[in-house]
Amino acid sequence: MISFECDYNNGAHPLVLQNLIANNDARPTAYGFDEFSERAKEKIKRACGMPDAEVFFLTGGTQTNATTIDSMLYQYEGVICVETGHINVHEAGAVEFTEHKIITLPAEKEQGPDGKERGNGKMSPQVLDKYLDDFMHDGNNAHAVYPGLVYITFPTELGTLYTAHELDEIYQVCQRYEIPLYIDGARLGYGLMADGNDITLPYLARHCDVFYIGGTKIGALCGEAVVFTNRRAHKHFFSIQKQHGAVIAKGALIGLQFEALFSEAPSCGVRGTSCENTLETGNHDVQGNLVPRTSHLVARKDEILYYKLSRHAIDMAMRMKELFRRKGYEFYIDSPTNQQFVIISNEEVERLAQRVEFTHWGQADKRHTICRFVTSWATTEEEMQTLERILF
Amino acid sequence: MISFECDYNNGAHPLVLQNLIANNDARPTAYGFDEFSERAKEKIKRACGMPDAEVFFLTGGTQTNATTIDSMLYQYEGVICVETGHINVHEAGAVEFTEHKIITLPAEKEQGPDGKERGNGKMSPQVLDKYLDDFMHDGNNAHAVYPGLVYITFPTELGTLYTAHELDEIYQVCQRYEIPLYIDGARLGYGLMADGNDITLPYLARHCDVFYIGGTKIGALCGEAVVFTNRRAHKHFFSIQKQHGAVIAKGALIGLQFEALFSEAPSCGVRGTSCENTLETGNHDVQGNLVPRTSHLVARKDEILYYKLSRHAIDMAMRMKELFRRKGYEFYIDSPTNQQFVIISNEEVERLAQRVEFTHWGQADKRHTICRFVTSWATTEEEMQTLERILF
Amino acid sequence: MISFECDYNNGAHPLVLQNLIANNDARPTAYGFDEFSERAKEKIKRACGMPDAEVFFLTGGTQTNATTIDSMLYQYEGVICVETGHINVHEAGAVEFTEHKIITLPAEKEQGPDGKERGNGKMSPQVLDKYLDDFMHDGNNAHAVYPGLVYITFPTELGTLYTAHELDEIYQVCQRYEIPLYIDGARLGYGLMADGNDITLPYLARHCDVFYIGGTKIGALCGEAVVFTNRRAHKHFFSIQKQHGAVIAKGALIGLQFEALFSEAPSCGVRGTSCENTLETGNHDVQGNLVPRTSHLVARKDEILYYKLSRHAIDMAMRMKELFRRKGYEFYIDSPTNQQFVIISNEEVERLAQRVEFTHWGQADKRHTICRFVTSWATTEEEMQTLERILF
Amino acid sequence: MISFECDYNNGAHPLVLQNLIANNDARPTAYGFDEFSERAKEKIKRACGMPDAEVFFLTGGTQTNATTIDSMLYQYEGVICVETGHINVHEAGAVEFTEHKIITLPAEKEQGPDGKERGNGKMSPQVLDKYLDDFMHDGNNAHAVYPGLVYITFPTELGTLYTAHELDEIYQVCQRYEIPLYIDGARLGYGLMADGNDITLPYLARHCDVFYIGGTKIGALCGEAVVFTNRRAHKHFFSIQKQHGAVIAKGALIGLQFEALFSEAPSCGVRGTSCENTLETGNHDVQGNLVPRTSHLVARKDEILYYKLSRHAIDMAMRMKELFRRKGYEFYIDSPTNQQFVIISNEEVERLAQRVEFTHWGQADKRHTICRFVTSWATTEEEMQTLERILF
Repeated sequence: MISFECDYNNGAHPLVLQNLIANNDARPTAYGFDEFSERAKEKIKRACGMPDAEVFFLTGGTQTNATTIDSMLYQYEGVICVETGHINVHEAGAVEFTEHKIITLPAEKEQGPDGKERGNGKMSPQVLDKYLDDFMHDGNNAHAVYPGLVYITFPTELGTLYTAHELDEIYQVCQRYEIPLYIDGARLGYGLMADGNDITLPYLARHCDVFYIGGTKIGALCGEAVVFTNRRAHKHFFSIQKQHGAVIAKGALIGLQFEALFSEAPSCGVRGTSCENTLETGNHDVQGNLVPRTSHLVARKDEILYYKLSRHAIDMAMRMKELFRRKGYEFYIDSPTNQQFVIISNEEVERLAQRVEFTHWGQADKRHTICRFVTSWATTEEEMQTLERILF
Repeated sequence: MISFECDYNNGAHPLVLQNLIANNDARPTAYGFDEFSERAKEKIKRACGMPDAEVFFLTGGTQTNATTIDSMLYQYEGVICVETGHINVHEAGAVEFTEHKIITLPAEKEQGPDGKERGNGKMSPQVLDKYLDDFMHDGNNAHAVYPGLVYITFPTELGTLYTAHELDEIYQVCQRYEIPLYIDGARLGYGLMADGNDITLPYLARHCDVFYIGGTKIGALCGEAVVFTNRRAHKHFFSIQKQHGAVIAKGALIGLQFEALFSEAPSCGVRGTSCENTLETGNHDVQGNLVPRTSHLVARKDEILYYKLSRHAIDMAMRMKELFRRKGYEFYIDSPTNQQFVIISNEEVERLAQRVEFTHWGQADKRHTICRFVTSWATTEEEMQTLERILF
Repeated sequence: MISFECDYNNGAHPLVLQNLIANNDARPTAYGFDEFSERAKEKIKRACGMPDAEVFFLTGGTQTNATTIDSMLYQYEGVICVETGHINVHEAGAVEFTEHKIITLPAEKEQGPDGKERGNGKMSPQVLDKYLDDFMHDGNNAHAVYPGLVYITFPTELGTLYTAHELDEIYQVCQRYEIPLYIDGARLGYGLMADGNDITLPYLARHCDVFYIGGTKIGALCGEAVVFTNRRAHKHFFSIQKQHGAVIAKGALIGLQFEALFSEAPSCGVRGTSCENTLETGNHDVQGNLVPRTSHLVARKDEILYYKLSRHAIDMAMRMKELFRRKGYEFYIDSPTNQQFVIISNEEVERLAQRVEFTHWGQADKRHTICRFVTSWATTEEEMQTLERILF
Repeated sequence: MISFECDYNNGAHPLVLQNLIANNDARPTAYGFDEFSERAKEKIKRACGMPDAEVFFLTGGTQTNATTIDSMLYQYEGVICVETGHINVHEAGAVEFTEHKIITLPAEKEQGPDGKERGNGKMSPQVLDKYLDDFMHDGNNAHAVYPGLVYITFPTELGTLYTAHELDEIYQVCQRYEIPLYIDGARLGYGLMADGNDITLPYLARHCDVFYIGGTKIGALCGEAVVFTNRRAHKHFFSIQKQHGAVIAKGALIGLQFEALFSEAPSCGVRGTSCENTLETGNHDVQGNLVPRTSHLVARKDEILYYKLSRHAIDMAMRMKELFRRKGYEFYIDSPTNQQFVIISNEEVERLAQRVEFTHWGQADKRHTICRFVTSWATTEEEMQTLERILF
């Protein structure tokens, strides 16, 4: 049985683990005020091209969203989100638990590969603008929930990406109404390294007020890095984090992982190099397949492990996409990232499910299911080959 | 500079780390539904002598307290706690953040080693009984907050311990009023393995409705195990956990650590044994000092790593206590566990602080400070020797 | 300037005020445990044909919704509501403030009088059933918010009504999934007394688990009566009310008003009768226009002031509707209750607004506005005549 | 049976009711934006000598406390209060329900009339200063709850009063630490009009950042007026009010009552005057006993109904106090306001309780009970005479 069910059923990248091991006997200051966390923050700020950014580490995505959103809002404010946004559908009400409403807007529509029109998971700057304009002109808005933050995801829950132009448009709307923009980057790397993406980390950092860089899904055991731009971090963010149960005593656990993820890793993971031998105890040869990329975007970022891992998942996803295409399947939506949504007949689904793990995303029609297949930094050459054998 | 500031400025025990490394390439089911977590839960239930217990893993102490307490209470109920209880003073209002009041009672008084009477951090069964009796007979209690849970810590924030008899008394009061009892075991092992302690893990499990076994402070990088007895776990505890941001995607991270902590570890950490060599990359020889104990209590528990690590901290703490006593210092309270509270003149404090890290706990009088020195599973022989050199 | 802006810009019906005055020197037990409140509850239960119902008095609609909903839900549950539901759009996030998510479903569509299809503010039993079925079969629903209550309004925010059959269908869905049904009756009387309505108060009471009878909009200065059927009231509802700040010390204020509203009032408000003379101090001759109705439904309910007041508003609304129709205006939706939604050209709107107060409900198209005109129990014959003069 | 159980088991003063009646047929703007409310606010500001104050009307005390406190705090902040403070003991956790901790300090001690030392319900400026100083110097305070507001009551729950000097001292501490001061004035008038009190309404307004003027307990059916000084009102206070369910649709109900309470009432309530005859329907001759006072403080305030009503309660309380003293009873505490705490033997308590309603406040010792007897603006001469007959 191989698994393309999600991008978090794996461990840590060996270099990440290595950093934990190498510093296991240090006496790091507690609660994230340690030197490793400091170094990691410096590296992240450098990668963002933003020396003034403020960085905080949290443990997981839902926790990061709830804590960050709560810290940005007054009690009477809500957060704007498209209907399919992660905080609206898959976080068990963690935002409402902090007493804030999620104000939903319909997602942008696009024609799927099968010709049908459907939501693509992205917020439309026009829809957002219209909503905010209506709200500001509504004489009764004191009885409604004030919009206090705009939340978008990059990539979206459907694997789609905003273009640099689209992000700019959204941020301009936000700035016009003086409402901060928050980008959920649970899979940020998988967006940044996608073919055709024209958004870089520094560009993204300059086009929002706060975002987070997902570690859990890209190489770490746990951990997300919240980055506030424009000095927007709450001056008591740490206390708010603590109040949310979102501080861990041994904060270095996350700092060490991000330090590794944002370090140069020239020969990392490539078979036969020194770093492959680091961890004799596990059979971690999987990542040996990471091959140097030559495209412009990738070349510039080549040094950082986070990008490398992300790019690997994209390579795997594109191969997977090609397999499904060759097989003749249709796609629910055209995703350039590590999540692929394939429309498969119900009988086929049943047969496949005996040999591959994937997610039943929804019903396409009575006879077909939308199936989600996900690659990650940890997807192996062997798994890809097995999938090919299963399909053909 | 050596540090006795706290018991969480360290990494993981090598055997814990080893388990993470060895299984790093597995494809564990997400959100804690993996085989490692299942095995860890089985081991914990066995150690508790309670096959029917329900076990959940969370990341840190504050999170565990807030989530567990919230899950046990109706919205109009509060949790009873002594004034010095951790949830009341050091968790940034995480319980109130879930909308529940902490109802405080004065702690039991005892004579300190200096002859002065002071709170010892323990709840008095008599005070609890009186409070509950008054409440139940108060005709206006519909305007007050209903007591819905009793919270105690073992060991307490002052390092003190309940005797088996005292715990039984408290639990009897709870049962009489049909209010569940919750024990915060952030440092559970350090209590269980203390000299003179007559409470075993199975005894504790049978004398409360829910408790947690602290991993963060005893050998793990992060992680606490909540154990519900008497089938008291909320049937949707997982969703409540998620809503609190207290679920991590790679739940195996905690499961693997507890699997190691609750496994037999006969020769673990002893110099010259195979497990010492496990991790070449760090200088983890510290734990080599763990020596077999011969007392009755310890003998019974000898196999489990969690107990061994805990006992090591107690050994170190008792040596430290002896050092301070030899030096002529007085103690604020007589603690049999890994936290020692020493009364030191302010000039001395300043001098010491240049060579040892410790916590300024409070003012003893105008000229003296209460200083907290903490050992842990990771305290080394070298650190103890350095402390001795500094003191003498 | 006359006002058809809303149904709460007025005082109390004279008989309601009279009851307050007559008992002003009593010494009623505080917090609603007085004899007047008891008598009012008995009258309400009798009107509902449900001697076992549990009745509570609160002050206003938003407070009633938030308190009742919160009392019915576990912390991880949310309340299902159509997108245009009052709690979702006009209560400033009061439900989310209690930490519960509002799960929105699209409202039923119907053809407006202008031929265009639009949401009619009603929940569709089919859409509800589909949503619940999907949820129950979703293997990942532990990450979502559990539906714990269904909320509908009668009449809806658009003045529309469920038929007895439709309500029955919805309640059957709720019962199938064991989810209680809550009906917001802020304007309950205006629905019950509408032409064509086939739902009686006892029928409504038997087809839900909790509902509230709005007093503020129908004859009272303030006050709503929550009615729990099927013994569904939380056993500590009073404490939950108090916790919400929803208890008033002089609870008799609401009890006395509902006592009057649910008492027989044969000659009430008719000019020349004794009750007209009750309050010499005000110029309250307005209500003198209440004339006995002869239709079957009304005849049965003739005795209760609440019904009489409600029917008066309907009579006025139907006359108003006829005026707009005669004038040639189109309606946004066909409402049989006291709220009428008229489509008026923007120029006309501006002109009208100088002589009548009404609400700009939304944009119909670029040149037309949806205008809401509302009658109430207090609408006078003179106001209707003035409106006619303005229109023609 | 006569009742001295509380000061809210009565109706409204006739002049208050009169104002409701006289304007019952107006069409006031909804939600408190009506002319009556505006006029009432102007009168309140004038009485406070503070034209810049911001005034809001709410329905009851618990609601007012929870809404005001929540509006003044950031999410990570708590409110400081003495242990016996109303919000800490009698509001069913309404403050914690808004997610804020109540940080308790021990009340000031004073010698009771019986020679025993006990808490007097007042906050000590020294204790407050010490607490804040310790907090600000605590290196770990990011793990605690930040003090964001100081809450005191005037009069306190024990009927005691701060002197002008004491209030000034507390406010100076607050200002030194930049923490606003909030005064709960549920019984404000009963404090202002007490013998020996040297605090006037303008003085009080200048020595805090927000306070409320209780209407429910002094002449109104419901309603409290929150007064923000120093422009401290949250700019969206209305929305926060709505979110708390603390807005009533017919806001004029409260505005009209406060308009009456803060109007001149020279001959009000005096037998034989025109205003006595206002309400023929009730036997409200009770207030006829209000006699003109001659002391300096009272003379200045003579015109305002609120003061007159308050003074009446004080006159009655002082007569009652004298009765108990003559009878030889001891007092728990020396209260100059409308609440008197009398120590009575348990047998006597049982006998008295058959003829008078009062509150069992607590146990004085095994044989004696602390009994609370309360007068109000509505206490009658007849009730006082009956009490005298019962006692002697």
